[in-house]
This record gives sequence, structure tokens and C-alpha cells, in this order.
Amino acid sequence: MADTALDALIEALRRLPGVGQKSAQRVAFHLLQHDRDGARRLAHALDVAAERVHHCARCHTFTEDEVCPVCRDPERDARLLCVVETPADQHALERSGGYRGLYFVLMGRLSPLDGIGAGDIGAAELIERASDGTVQEVILATSFTAEGEVTAHALAQALRSRGLKVTRLARGVPAGSEIEYVDLGTIAHALVDRR
Amino acid sequence: MADTALDALIEALRRLPGVGQKSAQRVAFHLLQHDRDGARRLAHALDVAAERVHHCARCHTFTEDEVCPVCRDPERDARLLCVVETPADQHALERSGGYRGLYFVLMGRLSPLDGIGAGDIGAAELIERASDGTVQEVILATSFTAEGEVTAHALAQALRSRGLKVTRLARGVPAGSEIEYVDLGTIAHALVDRR
Repeated sequence: MADTALDALIEALRRLPGVGQKSAQRVAFHLLQHDRDGARRLAHALDVAAERVHHCARCHTFTEDEVCPVCRDPERDARLLCVVETPADQHALERSGGYRGLYFVLMGRLSPLDGIGAGDIGAAELIERASDGTVQEVILATSFTAEGEVTAHALAQALRSRGLKVTRLARGVPAGSEIEYVDLGTIAHALVDRR
Repeated sequence: MADTALDALIEALRRLPGVGQKSAQRVAFHLLQHDRDGARRLAHALDVAAERVHHCARCHTFTEDEVCPVCRDPERDARLLCVVETPADQHALERSGGYRGLYFVLMGRLSPLDGIGAGDIGAAELIERASDGTVQEVILATSFTAEGEVTAHALAQALRSRGLKVTRLARGVPAGSEIEYVDLGTIAHALVDRR
């Protein structure tokens, strides 16, 4: 059982977020027993991604190019800049089909307790990016959590002080919800923001 | 967002057991954002393990050698052969400190619904292994689940028909349990097997 190659694999898997000793063992056994091709393919994908993927020079999302395809797309409305925390959030906005502007990806959120400050989320780069003379509105689409709200608040202050128009995603009742089961904080916000 | 290297990585991670689209994204973003060294180390560990790890010729557990260190150990009691489903189960028995015999690892369990039959768990090899003239007792340590019990039952029949002594791990109340909170099936078994 205490083979070096197997132990090294379990150890490397354990470093992944959300993977403990048991899951690492289970994944390692599965790959060795049933899917060595999958193991080799994953190894290759990891190497290629670690080598080639970096941050877009304009929006900071992950890309293999100097500037990502979205930022290069002349069809996008360059007057709108949407600020999101992660590429996954950007992906969700894209799939919603409701947005044709550009993005800025913070790659995190302000979290003083974890030592994540304005420098770590590229606040200065965002302000520079938003001050290019073309951007007319910055839409803050950070999460509606404590840290996401703090991030939105800090960025809004900094951007407004440069004379930029700043908006925030609407808060309200999610589509398909029955009012009875919506949490009270959401109902209160939806009442205040009624239209 | 739709970069080839990143998509390929997410796709490869999704093939892992218990990993869905969201976790695959989260793991990929984490590795690229915070732990490229970890990504490269995992890639290397996967390659090395897929290349070097195979099954022990005697007990079928994972090993890099022809015969695994446990099977080679002259200090182990070769008259006892313990049958387990996985290397993880073998590891648990080893850590219990209560066993000094040898093992046979099925690398699975009978599961007709999943098309896993006697051939897939090496039943014939187990019978041959147990009939070496040295083994005097085969201890069945498969899981106490429906499939584990079916496996134990089928193996016990086959082994006993060759005149081998076959035992099963004791069922009963787990150490540290308060009787009040033990499930009724376990209490019933502990009553029947009282000593």
C-alpha cells in the first residue's frame, strides 16, 4: 500500500481545494484501476494549462492570448464594463444572454481577514481600464455576500471619485420564486427597489 | 472564457469521480490562479503513477514491484489470508494493528447490476492463491453492504468447496458507541453473535 508513486499521487490530489484524504484515495484508485487514459489526459491538460494560460492584459480573465477573445470582439459594446469576481461569474453572465459589453475580472474579492486587499484584485488596473475615455458605465456584478458587497462598495467609491457612472446588479426576487419562500432580506430589497 | 487549454483542463477534471462542472471549474481556477506548482506536481504524479503502478502478482494490490512489500515480508503469517475489496480497506486493516497475515485485494466487489462478475474481482486467482497449501484460513473482510455480503457469500461457498476454512469479520456494536444510538440491525447481529 505504501508505494511511492501512489502516495505521491494521493498527496498531490489532496492539495486540490475540497479534496481530503479519502477522496484523494478514491480518485487515485479510480484512475489507476479504471481510467489510466484519463490520468494521462489530465496530466497533459494540467501541464498545458499551467504553461499556456495567463491573464488577459485588458480584463484579467484567463486566456492563452495577449488579449482575450471577448476583449478583442469588435461587436461588443465598449461603453459598458462589467466587473465580476471570477471567470465563472463572467461565464454565467455570458450565458444569461443579457449583456453585450466588456468585462473586468477581479480574480477574487476584497477580504481583509484573508489578507486580500485592493492590490490583489487589481483595483488600480480596473480604474485605469475604466478611465480609457470609451467606458461610460461600470456595472458592478460582484457577489451579494458580505465580501462581495464590501468589494462593490470600495470599487464604486473609487470609480465615482473619477467621475465614472457606476451601477450595481439589481437585487430582488429570483425568477421562478414563490414569494412565500423567499428570504426576508431579499423581499425587503425588492420592495425598496420596486419599479 | 472559452480557451482551449482551460476548457480541456476542466473537461479532464470533470472525468474524475465525484467532480461535476462547478467543482471542475473551481479546481481549475484555483490551480491556475494560486497553485501552478501544484498543477505541475499533480501532472507529474499522475504520469508516474499511470506508468509505474500495477497490480501485485500475488495479492492484486497496487504496487510498483512485481510482488508487493507486504507479500514479500517474511514476518507476516502466511497461514492467514484476508480478502478485502480495495487497497483502502487493506490500509484500514493494517492501521488497526490487529492483523499480521497476508491479503488478497479484490479491487472491487460483485455487482451484477453493474456487470461486475466473479472474473472482475479475480475470484479464480483468489481460489488458486488460497490453495497454495500454506493458507489455513481465509478471512473475508468485504464491506457489510448488500454487495459486500453477496461477494463474501459467493467467495465463501467457492472456497469452502475446496475444503478451505473461511471466516468473516465479526459484526457488532462499534467501539465507543452508546447502545441507544446504534441501529437496530447492528444490535440484532450483536445479540446473535454474543460471546
